[in-house]
Amino acid sequence: MSHSQRIRCMPFGGVGEFGKNMMVYTLGNDAVIVDCGMGFPAPGQHGVDLVIPDISALKTMGLTLHALLLTHGHEDHIGAVPFLLPQLGGIPVYGTPVTLALVQSKLTEHHLKADLRPLSLEDEIPVGPFTVEAIPVTHSIMDAASIVVHTPLGAIVHTGDFRFDPSPVDGRPTPIHRFSRLGDRGVLLLASDSTNATRSGSCPSERSVAPALRQAIGGCKGKVIVTTFASNMFRIQQIIDAAVANGRSVALAGRSLDKNVGITRDLGRLNIPGGSLIDIKQIDALPDRELLIIATGSQGEWRAALARIAQNKFTGLRLGEGDLVIFSSSNIPGNERVIAGLFNHIYRRGARILHAGQAHLHVSGHAQAHELKMMMQLTRPRYFYPVHGEYRNLVEHQSLATAAGIPFERTVMAENGQMVVVDSKKIRRGDSFHAGAVFVDGMSRDELDDLVLRDRRTLADDGIIAVTVVLSRNEGTLLMTPELLARGVLHEDLSDDVLDKATDELAHYLRQQSKENLADLDQVTEDVRVWLRRWCKRHIKRRPMVLPVVVEV
Amino acid sequence: MSHSQRIRCMPFGGVGEFGKNMMVYTLGNDAVIVDCGMGFPAPGQHGVDLVIPDISALKTMGLTLHALLLTHGHEDHIGAVPFLLPQLGGIPVYGTPVTLALVQSKLTEHHLKADLRPLSLEDEIPVGPFTVEAIPVTHSIMDAASIVVHTPLGAIVHTGDFRFDPSPVDGRPTPIHRFSRLGDRGVLLLASDSTNATRSGSCPSERSVAPALRQAIGGCKGKVIVTTFASNMFRIQQIIDAAVANGRSVALAGRSLDKNVGITRDLGRLNIPGGSLIDIKQIDALPDRELLIIATGSQGEWRAALARIAQNKFTGLRLGEGDLVIFSSSNIPGNERVIAGLFNHIYRRGARILHAGQAHLHVSGHAQAHELKMMMQLTRPRYFYPVHGEYRNLVEHQSLATAAGIPFERTVMAENGQMVVVDSKKIRRGDSFHAGAVFVDGMSRDELDDLVLRDRRTLADDGIIAVTVVLSRNEGTLLMTPELLARGVLHEDLSDDVLDKATDELAHYLRQQSKENLADLDQVTEDVRVWLRRWCKRHIKRRPMVLPVVVEV
Repeated sequence: MSHSQRIRCMPFGGVGEFGKNMMVYTLGNDAVIVDCGMGFPAPGQHGVDLVIPDISALKTMGLTLHALLLTHGHEDHIGAVPFLLPQLGGIPVYGTPVTLALVQSKLTEHHLKADLRPLSLEDEIPVGPFTVEAIPVTHSIMDAASIVVHTPLGAIVHTGDFRFDPSPVDGRPTPIHRFSRLGDRGVLLLASDSTNATRSGSCPSERSVAPALRQAIGGCKGKVIVTTFASNMFRIQQIIDAAVANGRSVALAGRSLDKNVGITRDLGRLNIPGGSLIDIKQIDALPDRELLIIATGSQGEWRAALARIAQNKFTGLRLGEGDLVIFSSSNIPGNERVIAGLFNHIYRRGARILHAGQAHLHVSGHAQAHELKMMMQLTRPRYFYPVHGEYRNLVEHQSLATAAGIPFERTVMAENGQMVVVDSKKIRRGDSFHAGAVFVDGMSRDELDDLVLRDRRTLADDGIIAVTVVLSRNEGTLLMTPELLARGVLHEDLSDDVLDKATDELAHYLRQQSKENLADLDQVTEDVRVWLRRWCKRHIKRRPMVLPVVVEV
Repeated sequence: MSHSQRIRCMPFGGVGEFGKNMMVYTLGNDAVIVDCGMGFPAPGQHGVDLVIPDISALKTMGLTLHALLLTHGHEDHIGAVPFLLPQLGGIPVYGTPVTLALVQSKLTEHHLKADLRPLSLEDEIPVGPFTVEAIPVTHSIMDAASIVVHTPLGAIVHTGDFRFDPSPVDGRPTPIHRFSRLGDRGVLLLASDSTNATRSGSCPSERSVAPALRQAIGGCKGKVIVTTFASNMFRIQQIIDAAVANGRSVALAGRSLDKNVGITRDLGRLNIPGGSLIDIKQIDALPDRELLIIATGSQGEWRAALARIAQNKFTGLRLGEGDLVIFSSSNIPGNERVIAGLFNHIYRRGARILHAGQAHLHVSGHAQAHELKMMMQLTRPRYFYPVHGEYRNLVEHQSLATAAGIPFERTVMAENGQMVVVDSKKIRRGDSFHAGAVFVDGMSRDELDDLVLRDRRTLADDGIIAVTVVLSRNEGTLLMTPELLARGVLHEDLSDDVLDKATDELAHYLRQQSKENLADLDQVTEDVRVWLRRWCKRHIKRRPMVLPVVVEV
C-alpha cells in the first residue's frame, strides 16, 4: 500500500495535556492543521505568561500545508495563531464568524494580516485533496464546530470541544443527525474531546443555571456582581436576562468582557433590551439595587476587575455590606488558593458570596461519559483516538470507547509527539516527532528556553552569589580581595558575616594558586565556581547559583 | 477594673489563615500558650520549606509564661515546638499521650530536651493562676483534646480541631456532657475551630468509609495501594481491617507512616492481627492479591512513597495492570495540579484509581455548621471568638454563632496580631501586636527574611544581570569594557547579542562621565544599576535584577 493511502495524525499539542491544542492530519504530503492554541505555564515555569506549541519539526517534514481549520475561539484553540501563523507560510485560516472575529482581534493586536475564510456550517469545502465539513456543536462559547475531514479512506471526525445541549440559549442545538449521517456513510476515525471523560452521566443544559441566577439576584438588596468566563456569551446572555427580570441595569467590568461582548453584539448575537447595558462609568447614577455588574476575574487573576473590586481599587465602585458577589464559574485546577484569597477580600468588604458549590450556578462546556458514548454511537467510527486531555482523561475515554463496543485494538493511546497512523486495515502508533513547548513572556513576546527556566528555578529556590575576582595581567596575582554579593540566599542578619568568611577563604585559596594557574581566566572562573559551590554546600548547606566574573587588568 | 480582671487573647498564628496555630491567653502578666504549630509556604515563597510564628513580640511583653498546652499532634499545632520552645524559657509542655510521643520524636530529631507533662483527660491541673482541664474530642488524629482554661472570670474553652463523631473507631466519642456541664457552670469565651464553618450539615462518622474501602479492595485481583494522611491512625486501622477481611497482608511504604504507626503501636492503640503487618521488603513473598500497601503521598508530594511507586522508582514494587490505587484522602487546596500529575503516572503504569470523588473513601476531621452550632449550644458561652481559618471561614463561623442565638456584639472578629480583650462586661478588639511569620529552610534550618523572599521572586520572574566595572584608582577612568553576565533573563539565541549591545552602550555612558563622577564608587554603582535597569526596560521590556560590582584597582 502506498504512503498516500494512509492517514497520519500528528498531535503538536493538547494530547496528554490540557491546552495548546494543535493537530496535523496528513495524507501523503498533503496536510491540514486543526486548531492552534496556547497553554498556560506550569508551577515552576517562572515568568512565563503563555506556552505555545513548538512546530520546528513540522517545518522540516516537507508537507504541503493547505489550511488551518479552527474549531472554536477559546484561547487553547486559537491563542497561538498570532505566534505561529507567520511561520506557516500564509495558509488560509478557516473558522466560524465568532471564531474569526476573535482571531481577527488577536491579529490586529499583533499588527498581523491573514487570509481568513468563513467555515461554512452547511456546505463542504475543498481543501487540497480533502473536502472539509463543519458541524456546529454546543459548547461554552458561541459558534463552536466539529471539523470533518473527508479523505479517500473515509471521514476523520475531529470533534473539538463539544457537548450535547438539547436546548441551548441561542436555540442552535448540535444537529446530531449530521453525525449520524456521517456514520451511515462510514467514519474512519473519531478524534474526540476527553476533557470530561472522567465524569459520569451528562452535563445539564446551559439554560439550567437561569433559576439559581434569578433567585440569587432577586434576593439581594444591594449591588450584585457576577463573575464568569468572559468568552461565554450564553452565560452573559442569561446573566443579562436575570438582571433585567429583576429590574437591574447591567455594566461590564474588565477588558476581555468589553471585547467579547462587543464582538458578539456586532455580529447581532446578543439580545440586550434597549438601555439595559450601561457604561461602567455611569453606575453612580443608579441606586445599588438597580445595578448588576458583570466582572472578569473568576479565577482570582489579581489584575482582573473582580480582584480590584474586592480590594476597593476599582474606580467608581465600592463593595460593601448588602452587596452580593456571584461566582457563575468553576475553579480551574491550580487556582484554588488564589480564589480563596479573593473570597477573603470580598468578605473583608462585608459583601456576601454565592458560588457554584452552593447553588446551581455553573455547568461545564464539555461532554461527559454519556455524551461521549453517544458521539461514538452516532458516528460509529472504525477507529477511535481520544484527544484533548491529560493521560488520565485519555485513558478514561478509551475505557468509555471499549464500553461502548469499539474493540480495544481499534483504539489508540498516543500523546503529543507520537504519530498515529491509520489505514483501512488498522490503527497504530507511528514514529515519534519533536512536539515541545515554546515559553512566551507576554510583555516582551520573546521566547524563553528551557535553560532560562532552569536558571530561574535555581535562582528562585536558592538565590545567587556573584563573585568578582580581579587579576593582574602582568604579574598573574590577585589585585584585590574578591568581591562577593548575594541575593536571595541568606537572612540579612547572617549574610554579611557569612560572605566575609567566604571572601577571606576564597582570597586565601586564590593566593595559594601558582601564576600559571591564574593565567588561564576560563580555568580560574571554573575553579572559583566549584570552590564557592562547595563552600556554600559545606558552610551554609545551600546551593545558590554561583556567578563568577574573573577579569585581568 | 484592674488589668488583672480581664483576659487578653493574643493570636500569634492560625487566625485569618490556615496553619501555624498559636494562641496566648493572659490574665494580668500570667500567660499560657495553646499550640505551637507550623504552616506551609504560599506560592511565591520560593525555597521555603516551612513557616513558623514570629514570637519576637511575645518576648518583649514581660509575661510570665506558665505552660504550653497542646491540643493534638498535627503539624499545624505542634510543628513549631522544636523551633520556638528553646525561646520560651523551658516552660512545661502539656499534651495527651499520642501528642507528647509525636513531640518527643521531633525533639529527638532536633537534639532537644523539654519538660513534657501528661495532660490529664479527667482531672483539672493547676497552671499558674489558672486551672486547666482537657476534654477529649474526636478528630482525624488520636488523642485530640479541647483545652479549658479556668480563670477567675470564667472558663475559656479553646476547642482545638474537633468534630462530633458519635461512633469513632477507637470507641472514644467526644464526651459532650462535659461541654454541657461547663456551660452549666458558665463559659466566658468559646474560641472554636472555623475550618469547616463554610460546610453545611454534619460530617459522617469516620467509620462510614469502611464499606467503600472493603468493597474496593475486595473487587481487585492485583495489588492494592491505599494512600491517606499518615497521621490518621483511625483510617490506618480501618484500612488494615479491610485488608485483613479480604485476606491481604499489609505493608507500609513511607517514613512518616512507619513513624506514626510505630508510635501508635508502642502506645497499644492499634489493633493489628498477628502476622498481618509485613515488612515492605518482604512483599515479594506474597502473590499480588494477598497484598495491600499503605503509602504516603496522597497530596502528590514528589519524594513520597506513592510518587515513587507511580514512577516505578520504589525498590521492590512494580505497579501494573490489575493493580488498584485508592486515594482515601481529600485534595488540600493548591495541590490539585500535582495530584493530577500523580494520577497520570499511575494510569501510565496501567493501574486503576479510585478516589474520594467516586466513592465514600474520606471524611473530614473538622466540625461542620451543625456541629459548630452544637458546640455553642452545649457550652452557651458569654462571648464567641472564631479561630483556625482564613477570614472567609471566620466570618462564616461568626454568622453561624449569630444564627445560633449569640448576640452579634458578643462575637469578635480578630486575626493574627490583633488582641482580643474580654472582661465581665464586654468583648472587644484590643491593641495590635507583631505576629509575623518566620520562613524556615528545612535543610539548613536557617530563617529567611522577607528581603530574601522578595529577591527570590524577582530572580524567579525576571532573572539577573551581573555587571562588573573596573576603574583605575589613580586616573578615575574605565580600565576595561564592563563585563555583563545574565542568568534567567533571555533565550540563549538572543542573550549574547543583547548583552554585547548593552555592554557597548554602558561603556560609552561610563566613558562620558567626569573623573569626579567616577571617583565615588557608591555613586557609580548606583548609576550603573539605574542605567542598566532603564536600558533593559527600554530594549528588552524586562526588569531583571541588576547586580553591579564596581571596583577600583
